[in-house]
Amino acid sequence: MSILVVGTVAFDAIETPFGKTDKIVGGAATYISWAASYFTDKINLVSVVGDDFPEEEISAMRDRGISDEGLQIKEGEKSFFWSGKYHMDMNSRDTLITELNVLEHFDPLIPDNYQESDFLMLGNLTPQVQMQVVERLQNRPKLVVLDTMNFWMDIAMDDLKAVLKKIDVLTINDEEARQLSGEYSLVKAAQKILTMGPSYLVIKKGEHGALLFHGNQVFFAPALPLEEVFDPTGAGDTFAGGFIGYLAQTGDISFDNMKRALIFGSAMASFCVEKFGIERLTELTQEDIDERIQEFIDLVQFDILLEA
Amino acid sequence: MSILVVGTVAFDAIETPFGKTDKIVGGAATYISWAASYFTDKINLVSVVGDDFPEEEISAMRDRGISDEGLQIKEGEKSFFWSGKYHMDMNSRDTLITELNVLEHFDPLIPDNYQESDFLMLGNLTPQVQMQVVERLQNRPKLVVLDTMNFWMDIAMDDLKAVLKKIDVLTINDEEARQLSGEYSLVKAAQKILTMGPSYLVIKKGEHGALLFHGNQVFFAPALPLEEVFDPTGAGDTFAGGFIGYLAQTGDISFDNMKRALIFGSAMASFCVEKFGIERLTELTQEDIDERIQEFIDLVQFDILLEA
Repeated sequence: MSILVVGTVAFDAIETPFGKTDKIVGGAATYISWAASYFTDKINLVSVVGDDFPEEEISAMRDRGISDEGLQIKEGEKSFFWSGKYHMDMNSRDTLITELNVLEHFDPLIPDNYQESDFLMLGNLTPQVQMQVVERLQNRPKLVVLDTMNFWMDIAMDDLKAVLKKIDVLTINDEEARQLSGEYSLVKAAQKILTMGPSYLVIKKGEHGALLFHGNQVFFAPALPLEEVFDPTGAGDTFAGGFIGYLAQTGDISFDNMKRALIFGSAMASFCVEKFGIERLTELTQEDIDERIQEFIDLVQFDILLEA
Repeated sequence: MSILVVGTVAFDAIETPFGKTDKIVGGAATYISWAASYFTDKINLVSVVGDDFPEEEISAMRDRGISDEGLQIKEGEKSFFWSGKYHMDMNSRDTLITELNVLEHFDPLIPDNYQESDFLMLGNLTPQVQMQVVERLQNRPKLVVLDTMNFWMDIAMDDLKAVLKKIDVLTINDEEARQLSGEYSLVKAAQKILTMGPSYLVIKKGEHGALLFHGNQVFFAPALPLEEVFDPTGAGDTFAGGFIGYLAQTGDISFDNMKRALIFGSAMASFCVEKFGIERLTELTQEDIDERIQEFIDLVQFDILLEA
């Protein structure tokens, strides 16, 4: 099945305790699309860049089955740029620079060819733009997944709450779940958020794994214990890309299949953090992915037989 | 199989955001023994209390198959007393009062009847006392598990390192693993700690579950997402009690069985935090435990078939 991916395609400059980069390719839609491209070649990208964005990066994505028909290139303008620095624990970071550039007046135009996309993945963007995308689709996709962040809860909560009513799956981190719900307990937070629109909630806990809530059911996907987290940038987006990519590949949106999708998302995220930016995501083989999935199986598999 | 449990039997006074207690029964060996008593009735307790410790608490333990032959009662002295206050996130706490009392000169005498204990569980105590116990056993038990804490790393690291050489399984939390190894990455920390004596390392991450390391193998047991953590006191000791209790019940110390033991330990810990002190641990049924184990299975079970 096909996926419409909406989000940023951008430049990042990253500093971690292990090193620093110049401007490298980043952006939520970039990570999502690369991760999903290991599962399907029907990816419809909607985003915007300036004329400073390298054509070879776009053609590398095109080679992976990512359509750039919906990627607007603004002549004489600059791509979105973010720069940040991670602390030793890799769980906290300081934003050094945010230059909105082309993002400031982003009008998410949907090419006609994209109208029949089966799934919609709304990467982190202003809730207003996310809503515009939903409204511009003539038919509701079979599944709408939305990622957002605390920033929009701080400055655009009403817009965010409006778009939450339109979606099926929300992916946020634990602190964001607490902020959105006003509940400290993640179980209580999930119960509240599941009344706000989405019928599935994924709470991303970084190195502590991810939880999937649906009705009264809950599933937990661990994060792989890694020797080194080299650069966490894009891990959440990569997780979302693996998640929706696997759902699109299998065409199955049952709760049981979402569990598997959560494991595939976690596996893709575990690759992402091994190198700077999208580098690791551009060089994977099916064998790499299968081996990683086996590590997840070994990590949590146990057999306990309870007497009836 | 039988378990020799050495640790504190004491009083606690606890304050959490949900309420506070007067002096209630606590102590590492108390939690360990109660948790293990759901799996075996051959528990040999070595500890010390003052004459202020209620006889009915001792007889309640005796009724569960916990032998008090090795529980010294010091006339005219007072039991160990700890008082603490938890913060809103329940992950951090302030110690308000520590009165060592009988613990100050604790001489861990091992009754002859205890000499044939199959397993040894050394609850958190000064490493010197833990070492004395190891030295006083005429035959080495089939499995020695040791729990400790950052306090001993701060003031008695050499003693701790000496006793680590004598044990099989070490249980510590993530911060303690970092402190003991000098490594931030838990994978690297585990590699280092596994060269210090123990061949199994359990890293307890509280609400984020627990990791079991052995050679190059790693297993992860999740914590159950709970609506409310009422009182985390004793959760780590309860985990250890469920872990060694299950091993004693099954008599199987293979890595595969340790995985199951980790799940049983996690299940017992999830009960512990539901009420103040040991209260919840004194009222469980086999049905309660089976239901809880099923929740753990549902929480992490998924089926992914990889092509060969």
